[in-house]
Amino acid sequence: MAPLILASASPRRKEILRKINLTFDIVPSGVDEDYTNGLNPPQMAEQWALEKARSVSSPHPDKDVIGADTIVVLDDTILGKPTDADDAKRMLTTLSGKIHTVYTGVALRCDSAGAEESFVASTRVTFYSLGEEAIDRYVATGDPMDKAGAYGIQDTSACFVKKIDGCYNNVVGFPLAQFVQLIGNESVKEKFSVDNWFASDREIA
Amino acid sequence: MAPLILASASPRRKEILRKINLTFDIVPSGVDEDYTNGLNPPQMAEQWALEKARSVSSPHPDKDVIGADTIVVLDDTILGKPTDADDAKRMLTTLSGKIHTVYTGVALRCDSAGAEESFVASTRVTFYSLGEEAIDRYVATGDPMDKAGAYGIQDTSACFVKKIDGCYNNVVGFPLAQFVQLIGNESVKEKFSVDNWFASDREIA
Repeated sequence: MAPLILASASPRRKEILRKINLTFDIVPSGVDEDYTNGLNPPQMAEQWALEKARSVSSPHPDKDVIGADTIVVLDDTILGKPTDADDAKRMLTTLSGKIHTVYTGVALRCDSAGAEESFVASTRVTFYSLGEEAIDRYVATGDPMDKAGAYGIQDTSACFVKKIDGCYNNVVGFPLAQFVQLIGNESVKEKFSVDNWFASDREIA
Repeated sequence: MAPLILASASPRRKEILRKINLTFDIVPSGVDEDYTNGLNPPQMAEQWALEKARSVSSPHPDKDVIGADTIVVLDDTILGKPTDADDAKRMLTTLSGKIHTVYTGVALRCDSAGAEESFVASTRVTFYSLGEEAIDRYVATGDPMDKAGAYGIQDTSACFVKKIDGCYNNVVGFPLAQFVQLIGNESVKEKFSVDNWFASDREIA
């Protein structure tokens, strides 16, 4: 196994992390988010990223583990993954013409080193007013179904987005640039084996 | 030939337009931008998008033609495509730790209908402070060489970007969402054969 584990089944996160030539194994955490635990949304995203990293770190104590949790928040309401097409349509109708915020919590954990780091990134996303026909066409693609807030900014729903303010990859599901800043810190390099995470053709970070 | 022509050789623009299932042929314009013509940067981007669309429309009068031009502006200085690796390094060093603006002009033209539409989109991009090693590694990939400002936000230089304010695809090279708004206007649909541009599995717009 690689020295690094991504505790997420999200193909978007995998793709984003591959951009910087990280080599890692994927071990989904199986943690079920409970978004009713009394924290505010950014605290919650960071907390669940930590829970995911911890749950995978426990059976793999010598590995470095990345956990992440993305939530979409509109007017203090958290939009999770839609339960079905009707739910996706309802969510997109709610987001239409409004500004929402996407939070991604990121956690880094190594049990044997007793090391843990975490942060949360936020991006404000402004949607155009969406016609019912455009929403129906998008829901029919099936793309909304596995995504918080019922859209994936990297797919055709890019057309829904008037502007963003913050990190783009955070909206996709992983705030890569902020993560690269984190793992560039000397204090983090001392606790985690960052230099061993990269394929030989390391390009950046 | 398809009823729509993209007057650009940029693989990024092609990929962005394919997201919404547009079917088009590619005919690069061959127009050489002259960024010393006295217009301000956003006017210039729109003007060169028009020039590109016009130059391709002329020999294809019955087609609808899309032209686009992207420029990167830092402190009133336009950064074009780097001439070589040293120039790329110089540009990235200049962008380090600063906020710049990306403008993309977009034009739509049909000679036989005597129809023309255009707009310009702008996005502010904030770079982290970049170490010389990170810049050298990125320049060594060759990715900066065909890109205005010497970076492509969709590649590993995503790590350089602290935040953006505006449209993400505009920074990649084509402001898709704003274009979709344009071609949804009834007045534009009357002048261009928008409904014929899409593959049968039209998903959006």
